[in-house]
Amino acid sequence: MKLASLREGSRDGRLCLVSADLSRAVRARAASTLQQVLDNWAELAPHLREEAAALEAGRTPGAFAFDPKACAAPLPRAYQWADGSAYLNHVELVRRARGAEMPPSFLTDPLMYQGGSDGFLGPCEPIPLIDEAMGLDFEAEVAVITDDVPMAATVEEAAAAVRLLVLVNDVSLRNLVPAELAKGFGFFQSKPASAFSPVAVTPDELGPMWDGAKLHGPVRCTLDGRPFGCPDAGRDMQFSFPQLIAHAARTRSLSAGSIIGSGTVSNRQPLDTADVERGGVGFACIAEARMVETIRDGAPSTPFMRPGSTIRIEMLDPDGRSIFGAIDQRVVPFSRSRA
Amino acid sequence: MKLASLREGSRDGRLCLVSADLSRAVRARAASTLQQVLDNWAELAPHLREEAAALEAGRTPGAFAFDPKACAAPLPRAYQWADGSAYLNHVELVRRARGAEMPPSFLTDPLMYQGGSDGFLGPCEPIPLIDEAMGLDFEAEVAVITDDVPMAATVEEAAAAVRLLVLVNDVSLRNLVPAELAKGFGFFQSKPASAFSPVAVTPDELGPMWDGAKLHGPVRCTLDGRPFGCPDAGRDMQFSFPQLIAHAARTRSLSAGSIIGSGTVSNRQPLDTADVERGGVGFACIAEARMVETIRDGAPSTPFMRPGSTIRIEMLDPDGRSIFGAIDQRVVPFSRSRA
Repeated sequence: MKLASLREGSRDGRLCLVSADLSRAVRARAASTLQQVLDNWAELAPHLREEAAALEAGRTPGAFAFDPKACAAPLPRAYQWADGSAYLNHVELVRRARGAEMPPSFLTDPLMYQGGSDGFLGPCEPIPLIDEAMGLDFEAEVAVITDDVPMAATVEEAAAAVRLLVLVNDVSLRNLVPAELAKGFGFFQSKPASAFSPVAVTPDELGPMWDGAKLHGPVRCTLDGRPFGCPDAGRDMQFSFPQLIAHAARTRSLSAGSIIGSGTVSNRQPLDTADVERGGVGFACIAEARMVETIRDGAPSTPFMRPGSTIRIEMLDPDGRSIFGAIDQRVVPFSRSRA
Repeated sequence: MKLASLREGSRDGRLCLVSADLSRAVRARAASTLQQVLDNWAELAPHLREEAAALEAGRTPGAFAFDPKACAAPLPRAYQWADGSAYLNHVELVRRARGAEMPPSFLTDPLMYQGGSDGFLGPCEPIPLIDEAMGLDFEAEVAVITDDVPMAATVEEAAAAVRLLVLVNDVSLRNLVPAELAKGFGFFQSKPASAFSPVAVTPDELGPMWDGAKLHGPVRCTLDGRPFGCPDAGRDMQFSFPQLIAHAARTRSLSAGSIIGSGTVSNRQPLDTADVERGGVGFACIAEARMVETIRDGAPSTPFMRPGSTIRIEMLDPDGRSIFGAIDQRVVPFSRSRA
């Protein structure tokens, strides 16, 4: 089934079921928020599946046209957002951009940071930018939302805890990163609120694209209206979602509704033909493009995002239909009155 | 007023009002969970204050003896736990223990990490330890719980958003820290679930101990039944709570119920007389004691915590009465069946 949260009612939005083709939606009856469902998945999911089947069959009074612009993030706020960095090609490129080496341990020990989860952006909400000099970048990612995961869970237990998948724009302020990482305490100001796809999807909706560990398919990134990247999320992912979940749970349990991210999707490819217009799969963030440009041309030419910039992130099924709906955001100058 | 959450009902516990002397409590009528109150502070706090006044006056049917052992953390799970490291003496000592220098920028740019907030330990819940070699340490801290804070809030706006204060045991696995910090992504596995004092307290309850920016008074730490430290939380705090909140909110808003920690309380003192038994104020974590022992004696002698170790963290008012109740925990070996 596909679930979304309308920006209405409480801080947690109003839970809706969405048809597989994303054309129609209906307010859920079994629960009013997605966190409620995650808190009681075994009990509530069967009821929601019945409601979803009725919506699919056109038998639901109260259904309405689904509008991603009316959506909050599926979890408008969450108790945990832990983001891995499982595509080592991204790590290598970004570290080269900072002049840093990648230690061999990165092949076996996942990178993961604890992100802010108290407020996410909806899929079509603007990204407020205080200062262009901060180097605003997008990062297109896949994430899973888990049930409760016991401390020291095995990879198998972690796999069994995956309840939903989503797309993420892990908004980054690239020029704040080096100073924060140098302090050793991880990202904080360099990672403002992330945005999520309109719809969260149960694994069974994904067919063979979800193999129980990775999501296979290109993540389509369109920057300022032009194709910028379509790396495949199933390729070059060094650590699977169950491995990332087990990493997060090594010394503490994870509560239902924990969101575990893949990190920026990135495929290994020859740098001289990496760009989409040169036949490559391009990039799921600007920083990688700038690194490739620096190596190839001596200097970066793709600017970071600025007020007016737009980013669209989407994944299509084999029939060309949007699975999660699109993250479709515009950068706006921050003003106190908007806050 | 003083608020606590009983371990009953939902994952968020059951909100109670607690008498100023911590002797009696009553289930709140205006809200069932603390997060509900924080989500609607302006509307609900006046009702709770009336209920608290009735409890204080002995006019409340249904009041019962307050038992910290029945408590969850005041927020059993939260949308944000951002922990500063405002006592630079702690930073200096811990970094010296790692052989790292403290950059001068630390005097003006607060250290802060995003902690896991999806599940906290209650004040008397055991600390499960997987492996003694991980170097289990306590860290006694003060934290504030905020209302909504707008992005780019001023220090004055941040100060106005403080709703509650609590004590924290920021449980740390000291021997996992160096490798995690070397990866640059901050703490993750090295920071398992933190524990909180039984009671969260509104600033007005604190009288002159709360000056609007810092909490003044010794944080009493008792390790294995022996006094281990009583550093004053109002001394040597380089960044006030409003400054820490404003730091956290520089590039994103903070949602109601965000918990902002002080970092390990630590006072500057001559190292040769730092221990409590030598007349000093001692330490609010074991790592500092070990560093001082290393400098003084050539090697650390205070072991990290192991199964059976106990830690009690408390703050008394000028009349010797416990303000927040005590964090009073025992380390237990982790077993899968407990999880």
